[in-house]
Amino acid sequence: MTYNDDMPWTVYLSGEIHTDWREEITKGVEGAGLNAVLTSPVTAHADSDDCGATILGEPESAFFRDQLGARVNAIRTRKLIEDADVVVVRFGDKYRQWNAAFDAGYASALGKAVITLHDPSLTHALKEVDGAALAVAETPAQVVRILQYALSGILQR
Amino acid sequence: MTYNDDMPWTVYLSGEIHTDWREEITKGVEGAGLNAVLTSPVTAHADSDDCGATILGEPESAFFRDQLGARVNAIRTRKLIEDADVVVVRFGDKYRQWNAAFDAGYASALGKAVITLHDPSLTHALKEVDGAALAVAETPAQVVRILQYALSGILQR
Amino acid sequence: MTYNDDMPWTVYLSGEIHTDWREEITKGVEGAGLNAVLTSPVTAHADSDDCGATILGEPESAFFRDQLGARVNAIRTRKLIEDADVVVVRFGDKYRQWNAAFDAGYASALGKAVITLHDPSLTHALKEVDGAALAVAETPAQVVRILQYALSGILQR
Amino acid sequence: MTYNDDMPWTVYLSGEIHTDWREEITKGVEGAGLNAVLTSPVTAHADSDDCGATILGEPESAFFRDQLGARVNAIRTRKLIEDADVVVVRFGDKYRQWNAAFDAGYASALGKAVITLHDPSLTHALKEVDGAALAVAETPAQVVRILQYALSGILQR
Amino acid sequence: MTYNDDMPWTVYLSGEIHTDWREEITKGVEGAGLNAVLTSPVTAHADSDDCGATILGEPESAFFRDQLGARVNAIRTRKLIEDADVVVVRFGDKYRQWNAAFDAGYASALGKAVITLHDPSLTHALKEVDGAALAVAETPAQVVRILQYALSGILQR
Amino acid sequence: MTYNDDMPWTVYLSGEIHTDWREEITKGVEGAGLNAVLTSPVTAHADSDDCGATILGEPESAFFRDQLGARVNAIRTRKLIEDADVVVVRFGDKYRQWNAAFDAGYASALGKAVITLHDPSLTHALKEVDGAALAVAETPAQVVRILQYALSGILQR
Amino acid sequence: MTYNDDMPWTVYLSGEIHTDWREEITKGVEGAGLNAVLTSPVTAHADSDDCGATILGEPESAFFRDQLGARVNAIRTRKLIEDADVVVVRFGDKYRQWNAAFDAGYASALGKAVITLHDPSLTHALKEVDGAALAVAETPAQVVRILQYALSGILQR
Amino acid sequence: MTYNDDMPWTVYLSGEIHTDWREEITKGVEGAGLNAVLTSPVTAHADSDDCGATILGEPESAFFRDQLGARVNAIRTRKLIEDADVVVVRFGDKYRQWNAAFDAGYASALGKAVITLHDPSLTHALKEVDGAALAVAETPAQVVRILQYALSGILQR
Repeated sequence: MTYNDDMPWTVYLSGEIHTDWREEITKGVEGAGLNAVLTSPVTAHADSDDCGATILGEPESAFFRDQLGARVNAIRTRKLIEDADVVVVRFGDKYRQWNAAFDAGYASALGKAVITLHDPSLTHALKEVDGAALAVAETPAQVVRILQYALSGILQR
Repeated sequence: MTYNDDMPWTVYLSGEIHTDWREEITKGVEGAGLNAVLTSPVTAHADSDDCGATILGEPESAFFRDQLGARVNAIRTRKLIEDADVVVVRFGDKYRQWNAAFDAGYASALGKAVITLHDPSLTHALKEVDGAALAVAETPAQVVRILQYALSGILQR
Repeated sequence: MTYNDDMPWTVYLSGEIHTDWREEITKGVEGAGLNAVLTSPVTAHADSDDCGATILGEPESAFFRDQLGARVNAIRTRKLIEDADVVVVRFGDKYRQWNAAFDAGYASALGKAVITLHDPSLTHALKEVDGAALAVAETPAQVVRILQYALSGILQR
Repeated sequence: MTYNDDMPWTVYLSGEIHTDWREEITKGVEGAGLNAVLTSPVTAHADSDDCGATILGEPESAFFRDQLGARVNAIRTRKLIEDADVVVVRFGDKYRQWNAAFDAGYASALGKAVITLHDPSLTHALKEVDGAALAVAETPAQVVRILQYALSGILQR
Repeated sequence: MTYNDDMPWTVYLSGEIHTDWREEITKGVEGAGLNAVLTSPVTAHADSDDCGATILGEPESAFFRDQLGARVNAIRTRKLIEDADVVVVRFGDKYRQWNAAFDAGYASALGKAVITLHDPSLTHALKEVDGAALAVAETPAQVVRILQYALSGILQR
Repeated sequence: MTYNDDMPWTVYLSGEIHTDWREEITKGVEGAGLNAVLTSPVTAHADSDDCGATILGEPESAFFRDQLGARVNAIRTRKLIEDADVVVVRFGDKYRQWNAAFDAGYASALGKAVITLHDPSLTHALKEVDGAALAVAETPAQVVRILQYALSGILQR
Repeated sequence: MTYNDDMPWTVYLSGEIHTDWREEITKGVEGAGLNAVLTSPVTAHADSDDCGATILGEPESAFFRDQLGARVNAIRTRKLIEDADVVVVRFGDKYRQWNAAFDAGYASALGKAVITLHDPSLTHALKEVDGAALAVAETPAQVVRILQYALSGILQR
Repeated sequence: MTYNDDMPWTVYLSGEIHTDWREEITKGVEGAGLNAVLTSPVTAHADSDDCGATILGEPESAFFRDQLGARVNAIRTRKLIEDADVVVVRFGDKYRQWNAAFDAGYASALGKAVITLHDPSLTHALKEVDGAALAVAETPAQVVRILQYALSGILQR
């Protein structure tokens, strides 16, 4: 028998790829000794753009190039979201990041626990997305504390 | 017995609220005599922002004001997306429109047929969203022709 | 073609049976001309207690009497909750009303839009239930305004 | 090949946090050598109340403080209920314990085996909840014997 | 707006085909003015045995004759069970009636409300089936009263 | 109250488009007075090939032309299969007809009743598809008789 | 990387408890070295009858005694069926064995692969149950060979 | 904590059995050190044809011989497809391979990521199947690169 206050959870880290927020969460989760598997999309921007065309051949138009790439990326991202217990979605201050909002909607419809992570300046623009989240965090450290509480039952005060 | 080339479909029109694309689709669908029910979120921007606070009381902070509003809006939008056969998601050239991308992800996870509608200039930014769509249209007229084909089996050449 | 700003919704009214809140919502919904079907459990307390034993025979013990009754009631309530688009759950200031909280949990797990309705004095005790609701109302009039907004898109200011 | 009379089960222990019933079940399950993972919500009352505000910041009102906390708690409780094979729901004689009844409804809608645990004095008030349970126990020892029977096939007479 | 105490329900009448219990329920439901659609398998025994071979050709062996027939019958019965709100399963005192017990299990796994109908002499043999039912009736009249209560909220005392 | 031996069913007619089997089934269903809605993919071969490119623009390569067309066709076919109670899949003696087999697999995974319709000469090649069907017919007349039996309970001998 | 011709499967052995068919299958599966977990209901008849009353207290009537027992048994059997990849259902020549047919229906509705196991003399009576099975075996040895083929891809000729 | 760029995936290899494409993918996956479980149907043609009749007895007709075999094969193939994260479906230039297209439809309806693998000469005939795939490959090496990208996040340029 195990009294489970430290069971394995899977946490998918979706969204912004230009800052080191994933590393901060990774370190925090490691530091707290949490039994978590952290997963993410491919965060190398060029690879994520090129994967379809590089493997399957360059199409004539940019539109179909993006179609090939997006659908190859979906092989990875859909499985990882479906396998996740928690989906953290990070919005940065640059770019339109529609894929992050798409992931939040996808995860939400599957009944996953969604945590959004963004600056308060984006609050109004992210209204509907935040409304579907179980927590709206401003810093990676907050996300780590939420995961620590949810996974191990410890509230770091 | 009915040989059904004109069965009732429900089409949800999500996204941008600043141009008259919904009216264009509505007219086109009417003109083609399609047996469709068109639905949409509340498109009056102020109402969509204020609905929570107006009905349930003004909270102290903008964050909770948006939470109240978003969750009241979700009563309407989630049902309409769940009831829809087709979800058309329109992206305009202004604002971040994360709710539109969220709806596309939500509809996609539910297995709905998604049609995106946007200018080609947005193609790369919408890559992952378009990759999940069954059609990517540039004009409301194209959406109408797709609906006409899907609903009544007539390809307007 | 129909442009649907007034589609049929089903709203289940769960919980407290000692005040006339259902009538108030009924009148409000009628007054607003909403296209809604309102449903509810059997609200005659004695019938709800006796239904099993009266129809199937009096068992020897109170425990099995309640089992018979609860399971006959479940034939009605589960179907009505499963058919509902919105589940309004009312908590009064008397009795423990565990069936109301049970219905809220049941509806929530099915992905229904839950609206709770109770006095602010109950807020802390209902914390987890309210946390799963899309709206927390204090008066039947607020529920009606939410329904009006969700069903017909009209925000009564 | 394994002939499985001792397979791993997950049992979620929901409800009352003021007596040591979880410890009793834990000891009993350990004593019987059952291959079970026991899980539970955070049972430190203050932590469960404060988790949202402590991590995400103190909101202005008690209502939103509870909303923050409830939704952070839901990250843990929903996953644990969804992962459980059996959900034991304990009702004590104090407080309204609506969250326990909510969990019972939530688990029930997901098709989980629900066992309720309470004093016979609560039977009538818990009628609808008990009606959805596969067993209604009065003591932790009975719960242990049910688990022993279900998990290992041994009926302790 | 409709206040729905008399909404349409679908009730599937499964099992024994040698007595007139379906007619009794039909008359009772009609007499009570209930808004119900009653459905049933094909109750002409010979047709139910012969349907496969008659339409698709006589196979060489009795085994495949039964396979053909059973699978053609399944086209009807699976749809009707899936469409039903309530499944009434009648066991008589003759024959093994495994198809009735199969239907009860099928309906139960789909979350349908199951009502069993049989003589008390069969109680022990039907233990597991009755344990999955929301009501165990002995007479068609009891079934009618349960339906009346569930559908229209009226407890005929 | 209705005693339902003639309820509305939806039947999707998938597959071969070069003979008049759909018309034969349509006439038979009409002749038998069955309460059925018959649906089908777009059966005009050129339209089905061209729909994507005609509406959305000609792509540079045949591969993407087919992708566009297939995905527009899927808007229609997926909905019709999901709405169907019975899916009849016809295989002719020409062409590879992989879309027919795909539809059979798709319908099968959704739990639809599948009826295959083909010449006995194709039996071995269609082994796995026929194995998933509830009936394997050789003529449209047999399909009509199966539908008559399933829908109205009448076995035409 | 693993090339998986010997992956773990779970096989539930339902039904008759008076002969040693489970032991025969167990030995055969062991002999073939299959990577299978075999599970079963409690096969000690008295325990299966008494479990509810022994643990929860003797009720006054035989009916409620059976209800208590059946529902405690369901905690075990429903989980094991839901966890199974294959459900083998054995019918003997004695007793009515409605629970076996119930399990077959339950497993079938969940989409499990059902294998029935019985003497040819029962074929006609089991027509509808066999019609839902993927294989109808007469001996435990046949079941073992089917499992060997399904699990390891080896056809023992 | 694990940062998961190399998590276990299950990949089902469906379709053509006359060339060594499965071995090529197996070697490639091994060479790339991917954490994958590769599964497949029984690829020994004679065994796949004979399995039913060999184990369960020779029926009189070829039709029922194929029925027996197909349904025994389905015990294996349905589980493996349901357990898969990715389903690769290979079409060769010989035979009609309807079972491959059936598997693609089955996998697609379950929401699996489908990758098709075939010569460009088959593109038009496979239009609808390819339209449901997330990637259309021409060589086993391309499939390996897609799996490497999806599983480990590495784009081999």
